[in-house]
Amino acid sequence: MTDLPTVTAFDWVPDFAKGLVRDLRVRWAFEEVGLPYATETFGAASPRPEGYVQWQPFEQVPAFRDGELELFETGAILLYVAEKHGSLLPEEEQARWQAIAWLFAGLNSVEPACTRYFAYAVFNAGKDWAAGAKEAVEPLVRQKLKRVSDALGERDWLAGEFSIADIMMVTVLNGLKSSSFVAEFPNLAAYHARGTGRPAYKRALDAQLADFDGPAPAPQGA
Amino acid sequence: MTDLPTVTAFDWVPDFAKGLVRDLRVRWAFEEVGLPYATETFGAASPRPEGYVQWQPFEQVPAFRDGELELFETGAILLYVAEKHGSLLPEEEQARWQAIAWLFAGLNSVEPACTRYFAYAVFNAGKDWAAGAKEAVEPLVRQKLKRVSDALGERDWLAGEFSIADIMMVTVLNGLKSSSFVAEFPNLAAYHARGTGRPAYKRALDAQLADFDGPAPAPQGA
Repeated sequence: MTDLPTVTAFDWVPDFAKGLVRDLRVRWAFEEVGLPYATETFGAASPRPEGYVQWQPFEQVPAFRDGELELFETGAILLYVAEKHGSLLPEEEQARWQAIAWLFAGLNSVEPACTRYFAYAVFNAGKDWAAGAKEAVEPLVRQKLKRVSDALGERDWLAGEFSIADIMMVTVLNGLKSSSFVAEFPNLAAYHARGTGRPAYKRALDAQLADFDGPAPAPQGA
Repeated sequence: MTDLPTVTAFDWVPDFAKGLVRDLRVRWAFEEVGLPYATETFGAASPRPEGYVQWQPFEQVPAFRDGELELFETGAILLYVAEKHGSLLPEEEQARWQAIAWLFAGLNSVEPACTRYFAYAVFNAGKDWAAGAKEAVEPLVRQKLKRVSDALGERDWLAGEFSIADIMMVTVLNGLKSSSFVAEFPNLAAYHARGTGRPAYKRALDAQLADFDGPAPAPQGA
């Protein structure tokens, strides 16, 4: 046990998931505010620690603890970190709510289309229906990215200054890294590079990758 | 123009969308806190009012205005209404953040699976790949509902007392009304009935349905 704010993470994931696990969002926020945090790790394919489902009802990563407070959902955790530390959200009311709107938009208006694309292009790629489903979702992914691209325009960040909205959107766009969708929108590609080029992002990603030092799961049936 | 808080809504939708448009969430919140609101309406199949994309970057419904403040994303609007009126969120810190976590969970951990099911069971039902995609997403819908059912247990509401998390989750479950998934989880079916049985929900739904008094779109090519 530790007194530090604690985020759960994996100590092993399959290669395709490296850099995509969502604890990256929380690590990035802590690196931006310059505060230490601790991790509790287990394998992506391992049984969850006893009682984990009470902490994270979907048994996913991350869950978060700060003292007595327990929390799940990356959107909620980012909002908590921003509110607690008075950072990563603009102070001016319209800009603050614009950032919160984009935080939700990343999770609900953009990510689901990306997840669907990933499900058909990668996870279910071998199924006989996957090509049709993938083809049908591609225009949806493009439409969502075009909306974000148009809204972003020439600005550096979604709510003017860097905020939790950008931590969310940049990591949502990471989910498309096996495709060339983002490159179709030059200002969005530049935005993504600007986000992943931040020193705090790099420290967070390095820390996440360094935690993948656990054993691979035993072959099934062994 | 009006000084009242204003939500955008449709004045015409195809039949399958009745009761599913997301402005219902915002109307419900205002009915719960007992405050008036105004609507600005247009047809679901009509061009958006000029400048709407600056207000709602995805050109969806709802967008929201309160005085000078403009906002989009139902999760953000619900959070704004709750914070502004000191209502619909528990006061105790853990319960408050639990409600916020479930607000996000409705939008990101549950709704996307429901949307995918709807996309294959209804929207694309005639496509030759839709049956395979639908079959593949059904276990995901069941898994998500089981998680919510297990977490809810015997409680009436997700964060103990009624909150914006319930406005979100009940309306997310509305999206499965053309299926029998929710009925497979008796405590979830009872929760959904408890939510939609609230007088404020009924007033919100009646108001939404009453606004569908606009003209149907002209047949294409006419």
